[in-house]
Amino acid sequence: MTIFSKIIAGEIPSYKVAENDQFIAFLDIFPLVRGHVLVVPKIEVDNFFDLPQEYISQLFIFAQPIAKAIEKSFHCNRCGVEVIGLDVPHAHVHLIPINSADDLNFTRHKLKLSPDEFKDVQQKILTALNN
Amino acid sequence: MTIFSKIIAGEIPSYKVAENDQFIAFLDIFPLVRGHVLVVPKIEVDNFFDLPQEYISQLFIFAQPIAKAIEKSFHCNRCGVEVIGLDVPHAHVHLIPINSADDLNFTRHKLKLSPDEFKDVQQKILTALNN
Repeated sequence: MTIFSKIIAGEIPSYKVAENDQFIAFLDIFPLVRGHVLVVPKIEVDNFFDLPQEYISQLFIFAQPIAKAIEKSFHCNRCGVEVIGLDVPHAHVHLIPINSADDLNFTRHKLKLSPDEFKDVQQKILTALNN
Repeated sequence: MTIFSKIIAGEIPSYKVAENDQFIAFLDIFPLVRGHVLVVPKIEVDNFFDLPQEYISQLFIFAQPIAKAIEKSFHCNRCGVEVIGLDVPHAHVHLIPINSADDLNFTRHKLKLSPDEFKDVQQKILTALNN
C-alpha cells in the first residue's frame, strides 16, 4: 500500500482540498511554493501513462477547478503542471502556482511550512473553490 | 497567430510525430533531452486550464501512445510531463523522457541538435508509434 493509498484510506492525515470517486487532491507536504497541490488517482498505478483511459481523460477535468482556485489564491502568472513520479510508485500530478520556470524546478529546496501555514494554504484554496 | 498556429497551418516546418483533429505533436526545437515532444491543441488558448473541457479531457488520451513511444525509444525511467506556458501564449504540454527530476528542469541549458539528429529522434518515435 503506497503512502498515497494510506492518505486516500484516511490512515494518514492530509490537507485535503477536493475528492471524488476517482481522485483526491491534497497539499504536497514538501511544497516548492505555497499552493502546491497533488492530484492522485484512487488506484495504485505507478506510471501516469499506464492509467486506464477513464482516469487519463478525467484527471485534468477534476484538476481544472482546483487549478483555477490556486490561480485565484496565490500570487502567480498561472497554475503549472508537472508529472515526475520517480519517488512514490503511485501516479500523481503536481499543480503549482508559477511565476517562472524555476517554480517547477524540483531540484530546488522545498519550503518548510508549519501546520498553521498549511491550514492557511488549504483554506485559501477551499474558499476559492467554493466561490 | 502564435508560432504554434503557424506550425499547425504548415507555415513553419516542424518534426511532427502525431496529429488528429484536435491536437498536434512535434519535437521541441529547444529540447531538454533527446525525445522532448510538445503536444499542442489546435485552438489558440493561452492557459492550459482555460481550454474547453473536450480538449482538457482528450489531450492526454492523444498524448498517451506518444509517451509510451518515447519511453520505448529513449533510455529513461518513464515519460515526464510539464506544463509551464510562460513563453508562447498557446497552451502546450511537454513530454520528456526522464531519469531524474533534473530532466524536467527548464532552467537548465537546452540541447542543440542538428537537423539530422532531430530527424533521428523523430524517426525513433514514429517507429515506436507504428509498432
